[in-house]
Amino acid sequence: MNVVKVGLLGLGTVGGGTVNVLAKNSEDISRRTGCQIVVSKASVRDLRRSRICETDGIELTANPQDIIDDAEIQIVVELMGGEEPAKTLILAALKQGKHVVTANKALIANHGNELFAEASRNNVVLAYEAAIAGGIPIVKVMREGLTANRIEWLAGIINGTANFILTEMRDKGSAFADVLKQAQDLGYAEADPRYDVEGIDAAHKLCILASLAFGVSLNFEKVYTEGISKITPLDVTYAEELGYRIKHLGVARKNATGIEMRVHPTLIPEKRLIANVDGVMNAVVVKGNAVGPTLYYGTGAGAEATASAVIADVIDICRQLESANILPALGFLDEQLQDLESLSIEDVETAFYLRISVQDTTGVMAAITSALANNSISIEAILQKEVAEQGANTDVILLTDSVIEKSMTQALQDIEALDSTNGSVIRIRVESLQ
Amino acid sequence: MNVVKVGLLGLGTVGGGTVNVLAKNSEDISRRTGCQIVVSKASVRDLRRSRICETDGIELTANPQDIIDDAEIQIVVELMGGEEPAKTLILAALKQGKHVVTANKALIANHGNELFAEASRNNVVLAYEAAIAGGIPIVKVMREGLTANRIEWLAGIINGTANFILTEMRDKGSAFADVLKQAQDLGYAEADPRYDVEGIDAAHKLCILASLAFGVSLNFEKVYTEGISKITPLDVTYAEELGYRIKHLGVARKNATGIEMRVHPTLIPEKRLIANVDGVMNAVVVKGNAVGPTLYYGTGAGAEATASAVIADVIDICRQLESANILPALGFLDEQLQDLESLSIEDVETAFYLRISVQDTTGVMAAITSALANNSISIEAILQKEVAEQGANTDVILLTDSVIEKSMTQALQDIEALDSTNGSVIRIRVESLQ
Repeated sequence: MNVVKVGLLGLGTVGGGTVNVLAKNSEDISRRTGCQIVVSKASVRDLRRSRICETDGIELTANPQDIIDDAEIQIVVELMGGEEPAKTLILAALKQGKHVVTANKALIANHGNELFAEASRNNVVLAYEAAIAGGIPIVKVMREGLTANRIEWLAGIINGTANFILTEMRDKGSAFADVLKQAQDLGYAEADPRYDVEGIDAAHKLCILASLAFGVSLNFEKVYTEGISKITPLDVTYAEELGYRIKHLGVARKNATGIEMRVHPTLIPEKRLIANVDGVMNAVVVKGNAVGPTLYYGTGAGAEATASAVIADVIDICRQLESANILPALGFLDEQLQDLESLSIEDVETAFYLRISVQDTTGVMAAITSALANNSISIEAILQKEVAEQGANTDVILLTDSVIEKSMTQALQDIEALDSTNGSVIRIRVESLQ
Repeated sequence: MNVVKVGLLGLGTVGGGTVNVLAKNSEDISRRTGCQIVVSKASVRDLRRSRICETDGIELTANPQDIIDDAEIQIVVELMGGEEPAKTLILAALKQGKHVVTANKALIANHGNELFAEASRNNVVLAYEAAIAGGIPIVKVMREGLTANRIEWLAGIINGTANFILTEMRDKGSAFADVLKQAQDLGYAEADPRYDVEGIDAAHKLCILASLAFGVSLNFEKVYTEGISKITPLDVTYAEELGYRIKHLGVARKNATGIEMRVHPTLIPEKRLIANVDGVMNAVVVKGNAVGPTLYYGTGAGAEATASAVIADVIDICRQLESANILPALGFLDEQLQDLESLSIEDVETAFYLRISVQDTTGVMAAITSALANNSISIEAILQKEVAEQGANTDVILLTDSVIEKSMTQALQDIEALDSTNGSVIRIRVESLQ
């Protein structure tokens, strides 16, 4: 199998996550790409520091230029953050004809025009999926998925820390400063939280999204930016009484006179799906003039979610290097498609909702719960409606734990055979989707 | 500019939508691709029927083979639906070295293995983004966006008609049969609704999604399929009392013994985002082992939403034909990036939430509403809290209509200057996101 060598600039949270995800998913990735992606070298600031990933087989160096100069490395992944030396190193890599993948939103927002031009000149890729909304493939969606549309506007919750703070303020009625302290203790917010709570981080991402939407050069200085520090629990409550939620949104819109780029606290009708995106999660709504509103939701930060986006970019480049050109129809190489066994529904395990019509007599609940227990089925919740008189018909509603379907089928036969139950039991499967 | 000629098999709802979207967005599409996409020929069953699109410049033919035989046509778009003659025509087009785009989920689910193999043999693309979830670019997300992940499971609301019916049953407490009748009257459901309400359509889509997730051959016969016709308003209500919503889900999961593919009514915790996807909208949750759960939401059917996916596939092929190979960094050709004016926040138009601290004296509301009216600002909603005694301080909360920010700034200066108001007015922008 063809080996593609990757060099990492930086081996911190996202770098370590990238190494870990490449290791644990190497089989599926090879089935998709036909090649083996190997991190051969990584530059770090402190060679002695402990790492969140295995470093066997990775040559560590304190000199990032070693990565650029390594002739065997075809793809350089920049995960140092900050403007310098990241910018100088990326430019050097591009000039040497290496493809570059970066998660550096500040760098793209501020210097993307220059960096992209250098990539074009050298006919190499500079990919940045991980720079916006972590693992959500929003760059791919905008560049390739919604290309039939004129984009009218987009709006995103693109900073998880700010969304966590606003969610906690609403759920607990707490003040901004108290929740910020809590977020810092949990590691969600930096010691210097300004990038997150004053909207600078969101503005970097919004600037890139606006360029992807409207085909305009990056213009970070023009983003209006307002943070969430002045939002009070009182406003959160009043907004709720009016049927709204307060979210820290990045909004980009194109109208007859120009484009708007702005990051600020925003009331959104609570019925909108994005109004229900809580905690550290991210989501972006994109309104195309053909497709209408679409929404993309997922984890916006963290080692492995960000690594997911970094590696997707690396895989895009590998597929190109393999000059397959035509993607495999189902995303895996044709010869790598497997014929796995499909389970019969009787062998599937789910939780169940049961509605049992019963005569309200002494012992009916005992008989039902015994029938379930005899088939090793646990009960999660019971709902029983009061009836007017002893002996009348009523419904018993049960939620069960997960169980193999054939055990449930057996238990229901037992329950339906009871004198105190009427007719067939209604069963609907339950999925927690977590 | 390079012209790419496209032939349509079928010019009904989606075909007409495709022509319309290509026409209205031709400028942006050319900026993205560097070429002009022209529908030069379309096959129709009845040449005299009226069309939802302009047909000037499109040669109509009653013989679909004319499209296949046209040497100038590089991309054939199949929008006839059904298995035959679509299958025979697509095979013929592939054998002639033409790229094919289809929206035909039944065909891909039942014959995709054969069709994809033929495309591979001829080194051409057979693309099918529009076959699943309309305009949501879920195929691209699965094939390219989440490639770093081992997919653990996915769950989707992938039939808008069934979701509309379940949503109406919940909102209005109506019976299944009544809502189905209403959906038929509205044109959301076919006269023969079995494909939608018995889950066959969803099963077609689920089968394809499972193959994309796990890298397995298409195996439609193995999908367990159960419809929604037995769901009663009673179960919808009980589910709600337990904190759940009933949705018609397609679920695919991989476990140690094999894969599950199933379509059935399902209780989902109401806190999950997908539980709040209502009406005819579609959504798919995909759980990757690196990225965690991600969700993709949008319009699952209709002329232009489906056309959005069809044209995205055509554009992918055009970009390949142009052998650009490397996508433009921001999705538009570098030389096509524009420098549009960025509006100052003072020129941006939004609605506002205002919190005004006032002394509860006679005439204060009149003074505030006059100040707004003088700046041409309309009021949408007012919230005023009772106070203990006349003359005490209280908050007046207002929601306004859309207004240019500088008018609001002026109005707030006027309001803050009133004797009966205290200090600064709190203002937060409001977005309806529709």
